[in-house]
Amino acid sequence: MSKVIIIGAGGVGNVVAQKCAQLTDIFTEIVLASRTVSKCDAIAADVLAKTGVTIRTAAIDADNVAETTTFLQAEKPELLINVALPYQDLTLMDACLAAGVHYMDTANYEPLDEAKFEYKWQWAYQDRFKEAGLTALLGSGFDPGVTNVFCAYAQKHLFDEIETIDILDANAGDHGYHFATNFNPEINIREITANGRYWEEGEWKEVEPMSVHQVYDFPVVGEQDAYLLYHEEMESLCQNIKGLKRIRFWMTFSQKYLTHLRVLENVGMTSIEPIDFQGQQIKPIEFLKAVLPDPASLGPRTKGKTCIGCDIVGIKDGQKKRVFIYNTCDHQECYQEVSSQAISYTTGVPAMIGAQMILKGLWQEPGVWNMEQRDPDPFMEELNLRGLPWQVIDLPLQEE
Amino acid sequence: MSKVIIIGAGGVGNVVAQKCAQLTDIFTEIVLASRTVSKCDAIAADVLAKTGVTIRTAAIDADNVAETTTFLQAEKPELLINVALPYQDLTLMDACLAAGVHYMDTANYEPLDEAKFEYKWQWAYQDRFKEAGLTALLGSGFDPGVTNVFCAYAQKHLFDEIETIDILDANAGDHGYHFATNFNPEINIREITANGRYWEEGEWKEVEPMSVHQVYDFPVVGEQDAYLLYHEEMESLCQNIKGLKRIRFWMTFSQKYLTHLRVLENVGMTSIEPIDFQGQQIKPIEFLKAVLPDPASLGPRTKGKTCIGCDIVGIKDGQKKRVFIYNTCDHQECYQEVSSQAISYTTGVPAMIGAQMILKGLWQEPGVWNMEQRDPDPFMEELNLRGLPWQVIDLPLQEE
Repeated sequence: MSKVIIIGAGGVGNVVAQKCAQLTDIFTEIVLASRTVSKCDAIAADVLAKTGVTIRTAAIDADNVAETTTFLQAEKPELLINVALPYQDLTLMDACLAAGVHYMDTANYEPLDEAKFEYKWQWAYQDRFKEAGLTALLGSGFDPGVTNVFCAYAQKHLFDEIETIDILDANAGDHGYHFATNFNPEINIREITANGRYWEEGEWKEVEPMSVHQVYDFPVVGEQDAYLLYHEEMESLCQNIKGLKRIRFWMTFSQKYLTHLRVLENVGMTSIEPIDFQGQQIKPIEFLKAVLPDPASLGPRTKGKTCIGCDIVGIKDGQKKRVFIYNTCDHQECYQEVSSQAISYTTGVPAMIGAQMILKGLWQEPGVWNMEQRDPDPFMEELNLRGLPWQVIDLPLQEE
Repeated sequence: MSKVIIIGAGGVGNVVAQKCAQLTDIFTEIVLASRTVSKCDAIAADVLAKTGVTIRTAAIDADNVAETTTFLQAEKPELLINVALPYQDLTLMDACLAAGVHYMDTANYEPLDEAKFEYKWQWAYQDRFKEAGLTALLGSGFDPGVTNVFCAYAQKHLFDEIETIDILDANAGDHGYHFATNFNPEINIREITANGRYWEEGEWKEVEPMSVHQVYDFPVVGEQDAYLLYHEEMESLCQNIKGLKRIRFWMTFSQKYLTHLRVLENVGMTSIEPIDFQGQQIKPIEFLKAVLPDPASLGPRTKGKTCIGCDIVGIKDGQKKRVFIYNTCDHQECYQEVSSQAISYTTGVPAMIGAQMILKGLWQEPGVWNMEQRDPDPFMEELNLRGLPWQVIDLPLQEE
């Protein structure tokens, strides 16, 4: 049916490639490209072993608009799936516009020099995509992504009016190490040292880092320590969910994890400022990364499950009600299926489903779109079929 | 009156040199020697500035018996004060025997390749020192050292029979850093990862590392978390205090300190096994030391006090009683007086007093002696005069 180019050969790129290769009637041709072609080749070899499907690989510098445009013009894919670094969203959107290719990503653009999660840079492409007759789908991972679709589904089917949304993200996996990170520890540190932020009655409200905490009783994984953080999907949901009064985002961190991260920060081991070590300049965080377990080693040994969902309160048929729409995902089952654990799986599968929505024409409409602006039904159906089944449970209303 | 040679130019060596220079009628000539003569020269300059006394310095390899013997034969001191590394106790005792010089140290010999705190190697010199007509005084720091003298004083004056001794060592100082160590973090880690050990009814009993804990209410510094550890003075005290039923040693560690140390151990930052870092072999603990505050920077900024003492229960005039004999020492006052904070001060002052005891002839007796085997009275008197005043308080008897 259609040719896609996947850009990015990390854990998520692997999952997207694996899942696309499972659906060759839709993804008739798959090209995996990244700066380091050897990473693409390793994924391609695993895809071939697991699915029998051959995907092509290519080296591409996603920072270089001209080079990427030439590459897209030569390849002529229908869609570019961007699972590269968030710094590269804008250059890839530029290249898609220049080459006439639909665009999709899983995380919003961030300027390289400042930690700002905002859609404004990508939303500014609205008119250009409209004029070019191309679709750009933003944030088709799990959170953002599936969480937005859960909200759209709740708005369409479960409520007449939604009042509050709490998005809750729990990773209850255990890799058996005292401390390790799935990804860059700098990102973890930024999460727990940045102010929390939520939206209420039309205004953004800030709280001290990690100062708002609750113990949330998740389905399957049980009680977890959840902390209020800022997360990017709130920026579009507070605009697109009609009548919304409040939206907050919560991520779970174990006390052990927080203690390790704080100690390492306290002693200076997470610093990016080089220190003098025997006459050499070494960044402590680089040395820490070398001491910590290789993130690639975590996949096969991580046990347990993730649970991510939306706790939504609103009105239906004049009655106040509360639901939790969620998915749980098992790290080991994911690893067995696609050689990546649940963190990459829960991002990569929705990326593949978002790609399907575009390729099938179900979500094609010229312009730049967040997930909740599209019809949730076909996406929700695919989640159940492609490894991320969801459930809706009724919860008791809480005292205000 | 007499010439002394101080070997070792660390924090304790500095304190011993400073305190000896304050008593030039006793210490008529002072030579400070260590492997690195520049460290001796820096101390000598500070001693001159603080006291107006000039001390000589020399380079000496304390591992080399022949070289040290020649040095002693040329210098002809009355006493060698060993505040070098504990690995060097035996070579320095050998050199003293060969050159006919009295010997004194503050910590028992440790073989380089194993962490064994035992007096057996030094006690084996008993006959040689007797035959040579020389005195060797072992462990004249604070603990061991003053704690042994406190016990001897209690035995002589406060009790007819001592039943139990608990030695308690609290450092309630604060350097204002999240984490720093006064000395080698490897030693700290060894302390908290080694089994605890105490002596009861003629037998040594082992407990899991850091498994026996109490909150002890110290004079002046208040309640502190104290953990049962092995400490070397117990080995001689259990033999020399008549009728003793039990002796234990407790050291305080704050929860924050323990958490930092454990996290650093968990992630591998305290390991001495080199890792590969950008093609180089680097020991994580060496890198950690480079990231942590320089121990030399702690002195001027450490506030607060130490409190070390002996909690002793026994019988006097047919009545059971309990006392606490202790000293408290203020980090900033120490630093002001001798440019070292209380950790070095509480070890260095008793070393100077032990030296006095030998030079004045009060504790001279050919052989190898632990502190409690000498008359405590003149030593206790000097403690009050030389910066480490002590007190005895009665405590309520505890339920068994």
